[in-house]
Amino acid sequence: MQDTDERRIRLHQIKAVAFDVDGTLTDGGLWWGPGGEEMKRFSFVDIMGVSLLRRAGFILALISGEDSPLVNRYADKLLIKDVVRGCRDKAAALRAFAERHGVELGEVCFMGDDVNDIPVMEIVGMSAAPADARTEVLAAAAFVSSKPGGHGAVRELADALLHSRGLTGSEVFQTK
Amino acid sequence: MQDTDERRIRLHQIKAVAFDVDGTLTDGGLWWGPGGEEMKRFSFVDIMGVSLLRRAGFILALISGEDSPLVNRYADKLLIKDVVRGCRDKAAALRAFAERHGVELGEVCFMGDDVNDIPVMEIVGMSAAPADARTEVLAAAAFVSSKPGGHGAVRELADALLHSRGLTGSEVFQTK
Amino acid sequence: MQDTDERRIRLHQIKAVAFDVDGTLTDGGLWWGPGGEEMKRFSFVDIMGVSLLRRAGFILALISGEDSPLVNRYADKLLIKDVVRGCRDKAAALRAFAERHGVELGEVCFMGDDVNDIPVMEIVGMSAAPADARTEVLAAAAFVSSKPGGHGAVRELADALLHSRGLTGSEVFQTK
Amino acid sequence: MQDTDERRIRLHQIKAVAFDVDGTLTDGGLWWGPGGEEMKRFSFVDIMGVSLLRRAGFILALISGEDSPLVNRYADKLLIKDVVRGCRDKAAALRAFAERHGVELGEVCFMGDDVNDIPVMEIVGMSAAPADARTEVLAAAAFVSSKPGGHGAVRELADALLHSRGLTGSEVFQTK
Repeated sequence: MQDTDERRIRLHQIKAVAFDVDGTLTDGGLWWGPGGEEMKRFSFVDIMGVSLLRRAGFILALISGEDSPLVNRYADKLLIKDVVRGCRDKAAALRAFAERHGVELGEVCFMGDDVNDIPVMEIVGMSAAPADARTEVLAAAAFVSSKPGGHGAVRELADALLHSRGLTGSEVFQTK
Repeated sequence: MQDTDERRIRLHQIKAVAFDVDGTLTDGGLWWGPGGEEMKRFSFVDIMGVSLLRRAGFILALISGEDSPLVNRYADKLLIKDVVRGCRDKAAALRAFAERHGVELGEVCFMGDDVNDIPVMEIVGMSAAPADARTEVLAAAAFVSSKPGGHGAVRELADALLHSRGLTGSEVFQTK
Repeated sequence: MQDTDERRIRLHQIKAVAFDVDGTLTDGGLWWGPGGEEMKRFSFVDIMGVSLLRRAGFILALISGEDSPLVNRYADKLLIKDVVRGCRDKAAALRAFAERHGVELGEVCFMGDDVNDIPVMEIVGMSAAPADARTEVLAAAAFVSSKPGGHGAVRELADALLHSRGLTGSEVFQTK
Repeated sequence: MQDTDERRIRLHQIKAVAFDVDGTLTDGGLWWGPGGEEMKRFSFVDIMGVSLLRRAGFILALISGEDSPLVNRYADKLLIKDVVRGCRDKAAALRAFAERHGVELGEVCFMGDDVNDIPVMEIVGMSAAPADARTEVLAAAAFVSSKPGGHGAVRELADALLHSRGLTGSEVFQTK
């Protein structure tokens, strides 16, 4: 999808956006402590991006291969109600999400970074990946951010989606 | 404000400096643990910058959109008394701060990195942003650091403010 | 080993892979808290790499100079049974690992990043190092990743090993 | 001190090495949690560097402006006995350290990164700074690492000191 006009048209059709978590909404790091502590790094640039999409009326979901309660915490903070964790078959999870909301697969965007995200990327209307995704994933993605995961990749996609509707982040923030 | 002389003159008029926190005094990251743990990364290069401004007599404030007790901890460490957190209208918060201290808006500098900082940037005498701020914010900023948020952006602004008064960080540190 | 064909042949002979931990599977950082807290940063890009090697039938081991329980946690998560920690003589540990599994030293690959890894790198069939390993280690390594430790170095080695068997990560993930 | 030969001669005279902590042995970051948690990031590349210096017979010290128990933890791990924390006058602390060990100031090396390190850098035989030190500090340093603080700056200095005695890190590690 080299054609910018074509991309804008496809972005304009998107009504729902689903995100992988590790490596997409985070930098892919896993901080571990010897006593079982576990931390992940999210970022406010992307948190604001997800928040702007929600304010602009997009339907949002998190679909993670990891089975971590952190996914639910992130969803709570962003007011995202559709959350699937410990997911082995992301394509099936995305189909169920689309059906729940009466949205066509062609109206859904999914962003992910690793090989377990490829099957779901192949069925959605708009596939997206952070700049530092695996080579196979970059090859499968219609939209590739210039920023890496957890450092603005999601925000860049959010801004492109808003832009396809003639909106800027600043406008969306100030109107609500 | 391309003119360096003009910028120096405007910097010279600044008496008070207010900072956004996430993405400005931090790198914008949010480390989260599954049990509710939360950490943010500040840096000593910027902590020293804020400390030098205080020693040189600048009035300081923190104005954050997030409602986190971390903002107060940071303020305590830096001996900053003016703190606003969970702030929805940063322009109003800055006006109140300026009034409290009998300072004109033209004598105030504000540094921020995201779209919620733009309204306050538009009313101060000197608006500033880290190198990695959003594109819309960079366009609104009179002073753009070469360093990103949480990695020296604030220090660079502090050094420029000291420099406009004919001071170096080394001198300010050693005189007190 | 400049010859790519020769490298592929040697990679093709590998049956077992042993990893150093700090600086190889992590970015070499050690987060410390004043009360004794300790965290290290692993990454999902490398976790997936190790997981793909296991699914493809490689025998795996962790050999660490540090005596931290984190090594065992990582091994548990990746289903790696061979773990040596607090190891002073990594060459001896690797010989024992190879013997336990009836594998020739020439069929073993070891990846490490610091001077204490050099003796073991000299006895294996394929020595490997992350891009940011010490100069002496890079000189001793047959395989040098383009990515640094904890940020895809291990995944790059894993992909090369799979590729030498005519496999891609995507295929290995989807077949099991 | 552009002359490499001159630098090697001066490095050869060094018997004791003192380090600043934040920004030199760490990356200058301060991870803070709302409940008072505090973490700093050290790195194994530098831990190994300090360890090699100790094995090679150098007298070592930590001199930190921060008053954090973390400094003592780091010193314990590296078997460093001379520790000064919460230090306002680093030059005085270094003089006392040199006297305690019967070493001339010209035989001492100090590495630091911020303006509070400049006074001590001016009295030692060899001043050193990480690549990302403040501009004023870089100007005052005889030895500037190509690597930033907490990411190999200390190791680079350690390797140069060993090299001036005709040693490599690999040799020092294996002889003891």
